[in-house]
Amino acid sequence: MMRQASRQLDITSRGQGLMDVTRPIAEWVSRQEIGEGLLTILCRHTSASLLIQENAAPAARADLERYFAQIAPESGDYAHDEEGADDMPAHLRAALTGVTLSIPVVGGRMALGTWQGIFLFEHRRRPHVRSLAMHLIGR
Amino acid sequence: MMRQASRQLDITSRGQGLMDVTRPIAEWVSRQEIGEGLLTILCRHTSASLLIQENAAPAARADLERYFAQIAPESGDYAHDEEGADDMPAHLRAALTGVTLSIPVVGGRMALGTWQGIFLFEHRRRPHVRSLAMHLIGR
Amino acid sequence: MMRQASRQLDITSRGQGLMDVTRPIAEWVSRQEIGEGLLTILCRHTSASLLIQENAAPAARADLERYFAQIAPESGDYAHDEEGADDMPAHLRAALTGVTLSIPVVGGRMALGTWQGIFLFEHRRRPHVRSLAMHLIGR
Repeated sequence: MMRQASRQLDITSRGQGLMDVTRPIAEWVSRQEIGEGLLTILCRHTSASLLIQENAAPAARADLERYFAQIAPESGDYAHDEEGADDMPAHLRAALTGVTLSIPVVGGRMALGTWQGIFLFEHRRRPHVRSLAMHLIGR
Repeated sequence: MMRQASRQLDITSRGQGLMDVTRPIAEWVSRQEIGEGLLTILCRHTSASLLIQENAAPAARADLERYFAQIAPESGDYAHDEEGADDMPAHLRAALTGVTLSIPVVGGRMALGTWQGIFLFEHRRRPHVRSLAMHLIGR
Repeated sequence: MMRQASRQLDITSRGQGLMDVTRPIAEWVSRQEIGEGLLTILCRHTSASLLIQENAAPAARADLERYFAQIAPESGDYAHDEEGADDMPAHLRAALTGVTLSIPVVGGRMALGTWQGIFLFEHRRRPHVRSLAMHLIGR
């Protein structure tokens, strides 16, 4: 019998940068008792995004943050600037990295690789409460 | 009882730029009478893409279009140029932004954030008919 | 009656570049005898990614590879460099292109456009075995 579950997960970011959110998501999945299925996550914001990335090397995370600060810089000449210098670059970085993830579930766990973690990528300078809509279907 | 629905939605773009397609998608979802579920959309082209972005500020949209014109410019030195100067940059912009979206459905509506809209990002200069494959599953 | 199927597909890449993996995925889908549904694919690595791109023009593929070598170059100044000069750029290219795809299935086949193929984008210089987690749900 196929079942589904939905849940909104609110995460308070610590300001600009990558934040590992694998654990609260994995815990919610494990509580649904769905052995095989599909997990979908949507970040419900336009200045934060979701990324599956390297979960072991903090230096890789810092390089990644620096990279996006370079290719979508605050110093750009933007027409949309009334919400602060970090707002338009935030939209660009969210467009480049995306706000939805789809992850197969096998044996009651997300089928992530050994070195993969799920990261909330906060693009605004100040901390924000970010809500993630999660959906799980399977049996 | 779990159900699903599929539909192809054809959109005529107005040439290069972002086009808000949230409404026709939301209308199709609401007609399926699936309260909780998962919506998936695939843009069936390699020179147009799908983006969830800021739905309120036209200036943000213009900045976003300008940004992608800068980082994947027509003036690049491309080997694949027989289909026009705007063709290869179109593939690059589609690779950077992606052609599929997965959106949880809650209370019969897409769980998008307040400021999120779904945009068809046309990367070719001339208008094109773009077909989106939609799939909805749930109950 | 809704059904689902899961499978891990291992692909040996030939080193840096795009590799068309549409066929083995399409064959697995066709064997599941699910006429209408949703296919999800996750690349279980942080230095390879998945892309839906132009399947006909090899020159477009070469341009795409060159482009990502330019915007996320090996010559960048990275803190995370102990795994080789091609490692950090690999993470950046994977972040820009993404590791999951969601594709509606119609008439027993993926609803890809005529010119769309699924590509494994290997970002490391040396060949690697890359595992893809596939999930199909429908009826």
